Amino acid sequence: MIKIAIDVMGGDFGSKPIIEGTIKALKEREFKAILVGKTENIKPLIPSRYLKHIDFVESSDVLQMSDSATDAFKRKNTSIYKAVDLVRQKEADAVVSVGHSGATMSLATLKIGRLQGVLRPAIATLMPRPSGGPVLVLDVGANVDCKAEHLVQFAIMGEAYARDVLGVQNPKVGLLSNGEEKSKGNEITKNTYEQLKNLDCFYGSIEGNDIFSEVVNVVVCDGFVGNILLKTSEGVAESITKIIKNSIGKSPLAIAGALLMRRVFKSLKKQVDYAEYGGAPLLGIKGCAIIGHGKSNSKAVKNAIFQAIVFSNSNINEDIKTGLSKLEI
Amino acid sequence: MIKIAIDVMGGDFGSKPIIEGTIKALKEREFKAILVGKTENIKPLIPSRYLKHIDFVESSDVLQMSDSATDAFKRKNTSIYKAVDLVRQKEADAVVSVGHSGATMSLATLKIGRLQGVLRPAIATLMPRPSGGPVLVLDVGANVDCKAEHLVQFAIMGEAYARDVLGVQNPKVGLLSNGEEKSKGNEITKNTYEQLKNLDCFYGSIEGNDIFSEVVNVVVCDGFVGNILLKTSEGVAESITKIIKNSIGKSPLAIAGALLMRRVFKSLKKQVDYAEYGGAPLLGIKGCAIIGHGKSNSKAVKNAIFQAIVFSNSNINEDIKTGLSKLEI
Repeated sequence: MIKIAIDVMGGDFGSKPIIEGTIKALKEREFKAILVGKTENIKPLIPSRYLKHIDFVESSDVLQMSDSATDAFKRKNTSIYKAVDLVRQKEADAVVSVGHSGATMSLATLKIGRLQGVLRPAIATLMPRPSGGPVLVLDVGANVDCKAEHLVQFAIMGEAYARDVLGVQNPKVGLLSNGEEKSKGNEITKNTYEQLKNLDCFYGSIEGNDIFSEVVNVVVCDGFVGNILLKTSEGVAESITKIIKNSIGKSPLAIAGALLMRRVFKSLKKQVDYAEYGGAPLLGIKGCAIIGHGKSNSKAVKNAIFQAIVFSNSNINEDIKTGLSKLEI
Repeated sequence: MIKIAIDVMGGDFGSKPIIEGTIKALKEREFKAILVGKTENIKPLIPSRYLKHIDFVESSDVLQMSDSATDAFKRKNTSIYKAVDLVRQKEADAVVSVGHSGATMSLATLKIGRLQGVLRPAIATLMPRPSGGPVLVLDVGANVDCKAEHLVQFAIMGEAYARDVLGVQNPKVGLLSNGEEKSKGNEITKNTYEQLKNLDCFYGSIEGNDIFSEVVNVVVCDGFVGNILLKTSEGVAESITKIIKNSIGKSPLAIAGALLMRRVFKSLKKQVDYAEYGGAPLLGIKGCAIIGHGKSNSKAVKNAIFQAIVFSNSNINEDIKTGLSKLEI
């Protein structure tokens, strides 16, 4: 049975949504949850019928968002350190954390270790689209200064995740650039293009707006660009909401309209709700780490756990190794 | 009187919106329009009372979007070549083009020439925000591979444009990065930060979502990132519209709501309509070049002309030179 180590202490909203999410997940799937945190606080919150599916690992320390990634390695009694260590010791198949994402990434990379051939693990995230299912974007933060060889590996890892975990048949990978033509791009993307062009899964270069069309399933960029595109997308979505709300405020007719539109907005919200997707997988490590948003609610935690289960049951890590070894030939 | 050379041939929709935009501009402001194109086709479209404000320069060739920037230099009879050349010869103060933007940029940079001290001219564009007026983003396409010294100059040029042309008092400049902390960023933005940190106008690093808040008036990034953020923003806005429309299709109640919401969407559209802003100025040349969208309607052309007038009446180019010379001390 798949065993998932869950850091119960790290979220912005305390342990409650994490425990609730775990219970929701246990209601729907069979797995062993290993809850890492202050056991005496956690245990009373769990209905007794779920206890047989849960192990507890005591941790007295919590890494705060203000702590550095260096602190993460020194303080060996934090919940995130212990949760990652369970995967290292093969006592868990996967770790799920909604805490300090930089620390989770560094700990998972260095304690669990990289898969053979992987130069740099990458964080992948799903972005919503109007149709065709969400699109996987990587890297979104782990690697700020990248070389072409890193981006090439991201393409292989992203393709494997889309196929093995998301269940996309023949996923297509696009290289994010400032134009679709081969001649466009900066020095690094041009080099990457040359190395990717013969791969079956490679679609070619795409532009920012193509992320949301259905031309590709996976978008490759460096972590600097990935972070900016995620944050910019959030900013645009918030701006549009604000502009609509400001206009509504001004017109009684529009207020009536907005009431009627409520269902539409509800559907919009559901479609762009990150909680539907769970968390962001760290790809390229000898195991599975799912990094959730600090503000994850119980639904997001549940979905992050489901993601960890599908990941752990899949062949993704073997496929990444095979994909990378083919590159080197 | 300010003289504006206008390339009448280059737009996606032919000469009509360009001529109409010019006439709209002449109705509201006093300037001399120099229309460059096939005079025999253009002249009959102009009401005779405007003819005294217009000069005609004959050009028999049109640069197509499929032509390269190299073609732009070889074919000296194209409307864009001739329009730029009028500024070089000081027969016009500014050039406005909605044609081949790469060619306009290259021609303007090399024929008109860079301002003293400018390493690379940059294309700046205005992005809409829910409040606080639009934000100026540069570079958005001209310079794909940048060094810190280029980004530093973009900050100086963007600040001057915000102050002198947009009329913002004490504009604040943000450096686009993957985090607000000084420690964040890639190698280039970290170096840029060090060089900008003592400037009064420098706000610090900002993230993608901060573009749409009111913390800064100017956002600096390289042309690769700038292009991706513009295109991604377009993609998000289109996706949200699509999702709303798809949901509306499904519910009769929502259709009624949408009818009532029409005013709200109209206001949204107006607020995010690029035509309100005109075009994108090329900053750092000895003159003024405004590059409009190929799909510009007459309103966008009118506003691009107004932009060229305000630019030409301002002290921006002197201020850029002064700003850059202070940097070198």
